[in-house]
Amino acid sequence: MKMRIAIVGAGALGLYYGAMLYRSGQEVKFLLRRDYQAVSARGLHVTSPAGDFHLDRVSCVQDSAAMGEADLVLVGLKTFDNNRMVELVLPLMGEDTVILTLQNGLGNEEVLAAAFGAERVMGGVAFLCANRGEPGTVRHLGQGAIRLGEFGKGPSERAGVVASLFNAAGVQCEAVADLVKARWEKLVWNIPFNGLSALTGLTTNRLLAHPPTRRQVTEIMAEVIRAANAQGLSEPIDAVSFIARMFQLTEPMGDYRPSMMIDRLEGRPLELEAIYGIPLEMAAEKGVELVRVRMLHALLEAGEKI
Amino acid sequence: MKMRIAIVGAGALGLYYGAMLYRSGQEVKFLLRRDYQAVSARGLHVTSPAGDFHLDRVSCVQDSAAMGEADLVLVGLKTFDNNRMVELVLPLMGEDTVILTLQNGLGNEEVLAAAFGAERVMGGVAFLCANRGEPGTVRHLGQGAIRLGEFGKGPSERAGVVASLFNAAGVQCEAVADLVKARWEKLVWNIPFNGLSALTGLTTNRLLAHPPTRRQVTEIMAEVIRAANAQGLSEPIDAVSFIARMFQLTEPMGDYRPSMMIDRLEGRPLELEAIYGIPLEMAAEKGVELVRVRMLHALLEAGEKI
Repeated sequence: MKMRIAIVGAGALGLYYGAMLYRSGQEVKFLLRRDYQAVSARGLHVTSPAGDFHLDRVSCVQDSAAMGEADLVLVGLKTFDNNRMVELVLPLMGEDTVILTLQNGLGNEEVLAAAFGAERVMGGVAFLCANRGEPGTVRHLGQGAIRLGEFGKGPSERAGVVASLFNAAGVQCEAVADLVKARWEKLVWNIPFNGLSALTGLTTNRLLAHPPTRRQVTEIMAEVIRAANAQGLSEPIDAVSFIARMFQLTEPMGDYRPSMMIDRLEGRPLELEAIYGIPLEMAAEKGVELVRVRMLHALLEAGEKI
Repeated sequence: MKMRIAIVGAGALGLYYGAMLYRSGQEVKFLLRRDYQAVSARGLHVTSPAGDFHLDRVSCVQDSAAMGEADLVLVGLKTFDNNRMVELVLPLMGEDTVILTLQNGLGNEEVLAAAFGAERVMGGVAFLCANRGEPGTVRHLGQGAIRLGEFGKGPSERAGVVASLFNAAGVQCEAVADLVKARWEKLVWNIPFNGLSALTGLTTNRLLAHPPTRRQVTEIMAEVIRAANAQGLSEPIDAVSFIARMFQLTEPMGDYRPSMMIDRLEGRPLELEAIYGIPLEMAAEKGVELVRVRMLHALLEAGEKI
């Protein structure tokens, strides 16, 4: 089954998944900014431990009005650009267009649902280590699995169809019944590692090698799990085993620089609302105060706007 | 009454108090490192809102063995140099020499007492805004009051004598009965402001101007007061009024850079053990866990040694 797929927000995530889907035979169009000249002239280059590959004649535009309708819109925008999201997605919407946001944190599906209706919206979390290289190049460093599901409702046939699209493209993808749980599980990793690495300039393995920061990672994860389990998940997250699993997942990543560390090093804004602000609000609404997460948020924000 | 006073550790604090005592007619000798050439050639210059002054023919040495016995040794060493403290003080010790440490944090009196006997040791906290300028110059920015007392016991006549020495030199000084309480009260200011400013690069007024960091300052102060009140003080610290007083004290300081922020900006080590490590241990010994202070310590330490 061939789908018209529009990639909106072509950072490392959008470029990588778009390239994988295109290589698998899907009709993929990219909305590009920084990489437009390079990709339209020379195509898109992917370096990966699974084998580098190059795509010629990649369809890309600088203006989403020129993209045409899509069957599936894959949103990979940085969340600090969410104020532009509806405007960028609008021209792509046909009768049956589905939007899948793979952005970080919480609050993204809500923005899309408010504009286009909840029934159009799916969300997912991506476990991807990738960076942008030179314009026209994306560096896949490892992993890449996706867990996706419907926004505001349980399992659907459609989620299975989209998941098989990714699996057919060589991207491990699972359709989940409880997207809220998947999003919070991802936050258990993102909240400590993104913030601590951005603040200290230390990669994940150095944060884990130093006992005081390792302890902070553990304790912050436990706080996030406490907030998650107050959200009425289909099944609670077991703190001990889940934290152990997060450490097992992180250790082989080596000298990994989380996206927020790279954002800070490169002078971009940080995704603070999606990863800290909204989760803190969701926790507070359930009467859960996250002391360490709030402090981390304050310190990160202090580096941003003052 | 003329006293032979030796200044050991001539950073901004040692230079400023030494200069004030010398100007008041005391016999003051400075142990200098960075400022030795400048001070021996051109004397010591003090800029101050209370009026600049210059001292010619300042007695200074580079080696404490050349200082001779003192009646009073004033220690202003950075606490990360405490491993050199006993060696530096030893040649100054006569029959009745008293040592007064005005260093930051906890654990300094203990080092001196272990080497020279508790009866020789007094401690004090200094509320001084001062920086070193060019070699031979110290910039007094404001304040300067000292609260001092005996180590490990209550009030003494001697504490009153030393206090009047400072008062006669134009330095407001109070002898206190409970040095432990005075040290912890100082930590209520030092623990949030030193750490948060070093970590974020924000001066005190910017930390207070931004609601999330202002909230952190307040909550960290409350944690420190909880630990202080577990130490069996002569009288507990009242959190609400004391925190309000700390804010009143800090706001007029304006764009102030706490010493730890300057240490980090200038690439020096931070006084982490005295201001964070030992207070956290003292709290833990009383069963008090300081969540925010521990996180701040971990983040500061992460910037130091990894």
